[in-house]
Amino acid sequence: MTDHLRLARAYLLRVAEPPAPGVAELVAAEGPIRAAELVRQGAADDETSARRHLDLAAQDLSNAEEGGARLVIPEDEEWPGWQLLSLRTAGARGVKGMIEPLALWVRGSGLLAELVDRAVSVVGARSATGYGEHIATELAYGLVGAQVTVVSGAAYGIDGAAHKGALSGGGPTVAVLGCGIDIGYPAGHSGLLRKIADQGAVISEYPPGAPPARHRFLVRNRLIAALGAGTVVVEAGRRSGARNTASTAHALGKPVMAVPGPVTSAMSVGCHELLRSGEAAPVASVEEVVETIGHIGTDLAPRRKGRSRATDGLDPLALRVHEALGIRSGLSCERIAVESGVALTRVRALLPELELVGLAHRCESGWCRTLLGVERDD
Amino acid sequence: MTDHLRLARAYLLRVAEPPAPGVAELVAAEGPIRAAELVRQGAADDETSARRHLDLAAQDLSNAEEGGARLVIPEDEEWPGWQLLSLRTAGARGVKGMIEPLALWVRGSGLLAELVDRAVSVVGARSATGYGEHIATELAYGLVGAQVTVVSGAAYGIDGAAHKGALSGGGPTVAVLGCGIDIGYPAGHSGLLRKIADQGAVISEYPPGAPPARHRFLVRNRLIAALGAGTVVVEAGRRSGARNTASTAHALGKPVMAVPGPVTSAMSVGCHELLRSGEAAPVASVEEVVETIGHIGTDLAPRRKGRSRATDGLDPLALRVHEALGIRSGLSCERIAVESGVALTRVRALLPELELVGLAHRCESGWCRTLLGVERDD
Repeated sequence: MTDHLRLARAYLLRVAEPPAPGVAELVAAEGPIRAAELVRQGAADDETSARRHLDLAAQDLSNAEEGGARLVIPEDEEWPGWQLLSLRTAGARGVKGMIEPLALWVRGSGLLAELVDRAVSVVGARSATGYGEHIATELAYGLVGAQVTVVSGAAYGIDGAAHKGALSGGGPTVAVLGCGIDIGYPAGHSGLLRKIADQGAVISEYPPGAPPARHRFLVRNRLIAALGAGTVVVEAGRRSGARNTASTAHALGKPVMAVPGPVTSAMSVGCHELLRSGEAAPVASVEEVVETIGHIGTDLAPRRKGRSRATDGLDPLALRVHEALGIRSGLSCERIAVESGVALTRVRALLPELELVGLAHRCESGWCRTLLGVERDD
Repeated sequence: MTDHLRLARAYLLRVAEPPAPGVAELVAAEGPIRAAELVRQGAADDETSARRHLDLAAQDLSNAEEGGARLVIPEDEEWPGWQLLSLRTAGARGVKGMIEPLALWVRGSGLLAELVDRAVSVVGARSATGYGEHIATELAYGLVGAQVTVVSGAAYGIDGAAHKGALSGGGPTVAVLGCGIDIGYPAGHSGLLRKIADQGAVISEYPPGAPPARHRFLVRNRLIAALGAGTVVVEAGRRSGARNTASTAHALGKPVMAVPGPVTSAMSVGCHELLRSGEAAPVASVEEVVETIGHIGTDLAPRRKGRSRATDGLDPLALRVHEALGIRSGLSCERIAVESGVALTRVRALLPELELVGLAHRCESGWCRTLLGVERDD
């Protein structure tokens, strides 16, 4: 039975270019096996007439098996149904194109559902700067260290840096492609894709051999947005695919984050626009990403605090008295009163208090400030 | 009468360390002349007992006149009453320390109220980075170009860069000091302070000769926050005076803005925290500052748009057909249908449409994509 299901879904992936709402409806109504039969007979004509003669399902499945890949279908235990449900609910709310994949071609050692159980998507510009690639690498390295899987798109620039950072942290990481998983695109990342499959998974809803295309990247982006509990945009130009992923994540009701960068950098313009529009929250560290995601934040680190200063607890009058104290030579109480503008009786009461907390001391010529090492910058 | 008022306020500024709520109340209830008399006789004892014997008002005023300075009092036309009103209303709402100055010592050619009629405060870290100083300079230069006065605190780092940027743009700029206006602090900025006075104003509520002190900077910050229609933090460490100014501006109900920077920079941490907490809006340009300020935004530049792309208007099927087109050699309609997954009849209809908008053309071997120059990065 599962073989029939898998054959039917492999056939449907081959003949219907995603997202194919007509085919999805047919599958929902009739089940995949009957839907495949109906498509062969001419149903969902608009979406399948061009390819429905391509009956390559058995061949696709056996080729995949030989190549160490598999087709994961919704009927499988490893199907990441919880994550992909966000697509169905957004689709039900009327967000266009938010259709669950019919199945996913997967190359990789891990079980897909486990891999994306705790996952964050890290995306960004292809022509990233050194700054952006550094941040993507560090962020991904830190995320896998916090047991969070890094999902990205295997493109040059930020995507590649994110995958590499995750791999150097011991993985796992998941690459979602806009072409067949056998294509090795982009060419310069074919070695990287192999490593990703070793420590995670390379996945795609496009059939083996499907070449990359711009509309496929945009359609693919919905899967990147859906598989992460949130999406971090590390760098993005004014118009960019990463912003499309961010908008999709937003439409799916998932937190969108953007990493600030120099306002002088064209590659941070998209991030700053996301921040300015309120669509994204700024994140500067793994802790902030985890904090923003929230529901996977069980290992949330405590918030850092600013360094404390010896004078922090002083009330305003004591602070003024402290400021008026001499550093090199001492001052009389009367002089301190004039300098600080604090009444002499209060000065006389405050000085011993300052002495007690180690902020003042008596010297030959009067009262001195006790120095406590370097003071803050402001 | 105005001389008596001025003498009374000069006396009160000399004997009461701001903010002095008791003296302020006395002035509000009794008027400045009677309040000064009462203080001399021992009223507002807590705030004035240490200095009330210092009757230097006449001397302070004549020294100031000789030095080219003046005391501006609320009874003067050039008093920036509208801006400082924000302190009174915040004080009435219970925000601590939000007390209007009793008067302001001013060195400068311009009339104070006119100078701050359209003003933005630009503040930041003393130990700024090259990036921060560059941004502060450019922002201030652009603001004065938009007829906006730049208010800052004359400190090293961001403050100094903001004043310099404003001066290089032809001014005006206003420096608010945490010491007497005759002190020339910080020492390295004494030349800068002279130039600021030439093209704007150097102001302080501290009497001549008052040395700088940390608590004075904090008290001074409320004036910087009040005199601008909004406050921009260019760079700030985790703890910083600039954040104090930002919090005050926020408490005064004025827009707070922060410039994003590299998340790897300790000097941008304060800005990112302001953004993350929602206390500040991100700004990356003069236009965004002016847009955020809003009510001084009459010369608001139109929002920039992303570059448009020839394929922008295409529906998803037309986009898929366009993507499937060959670049070097042509393809048949049948082949394009299979590649794009679009029904052959639709392909046949869409290709002439693409040709019409200049995105496709017929060649010897079939249909080709028409190239339109460089494509975007994503």
